[in-house]
Amino acid sequence: MVAQEKTLDDLFLDTLKDIYYAEKQILRTLPKMAKAAQSPELKKAFETHRDETEGHVERLTEVFELIGKAPRGKTCDAILGIIEEGKGIIEEFEGSPALDAGLVAAAQAVEHYEMARYGTLKAWAQQLGHQEAVALLDQTLGEETKTDKLLSQLGLTATNKKAA
Amino acid sequence: MVAQEKTLDDLFLDTLKDIYYAEKQILRTLPKMAKAAQSPELKKAFETHRDETEGHVERLTEVFELIGKAPRGKTCDAILGIIEEGKGIIEEFEGSPALDAGLVAAAQAVEHYEMARYGTLKAWAQQLGHQEAVALLDQTLGEETKTDKLLSQLGLTATNKKAA
Repeated sequence: MVAQEKTLDDLFLDTLKDIYYAEKQILRTLPKMAKAAQSPELKKAFETHRDETEGHVERLTEVFELIGKAPRGKTCDAILGIIEEGKGIIEEFEGSPALDAGLVAAAQAVEHYEMARYGTLKAWAQQLGHQEAVALLDQTLGEETKTDKLLSQLGLTATNKKAA
Repeated sequence: MVAQEKTLDDLFLDTLKDIYYAEKQILRTLPKMAKAAQSPELKKAFETHRDETEGHVERLTEVFELIGKAPRGKTCDAILGIIEEGKGIIEEFEGSPALDAGLVAAAQAVEHYEMARYGTLKAWAQQLGHQEAVALLDQTLGEETKTDKLLSQLGLTATNKKAA
């Protein structure tokens, strides 16, 4: 078998497509989570993060441009699995005082997936000398990390108030 | 429909089953990743983490005991998706100098999933007053976090040496 040798550039592009697809899935899912959330604070957090996620998609489009590629997604089984589990929580815990805690947990699994991917992409962009991409990826990484921390707080509030 | 109201205890048990299943899948996957890795350091890191993962399963068994339940797994779509993506990397980048960087990225997605789940479980165990469980979950959380940091270093080495 003679195949062209794959490089870090290929891996970078593959992973960019993976997170681009993931962000678009997340964009569709956040309104459902906002709708399901019981507390106004959690609803608002999901709505705010939905708006932020639009910005993340936009930044990814810019990174594609910086490396001279058209923005394209590639099915990301990881995010589909994570979202599927979130849906399961909404169904199983509908009407339960523990629903919000479950939604927070589902959202934190999403944030952690994104933190892993953006951390990796940022490191690779650095190695490949794509300095502008590093800055864009770092901005989004910062927002995902901040959202994860906010969710931890909202999770504590949810379990303190209702589910315990 | 009359259903018994679900509580945070149910959510805790559900999530415990989720990560128990995930850890067992990871236990099976790490030897394949060690086999695929090119650098001896990365091979060793996967082997060491495989041994640690046995300890994580054991600790989860103890948490099940502490809450008076039999250890049982529940299919975790998230980890299946994450592992599927890792397999894809191994297939697509076999023989490429970027393979190790891809393996590190796949492993960091796994670590981040676990960090999300253990962080959540620890917070809930605290709320539910399961102090011994908090300590056990915190120990594993610490090891997953440490492994993620080690992987970041190994990722830099992999891309510096070969893939760039």
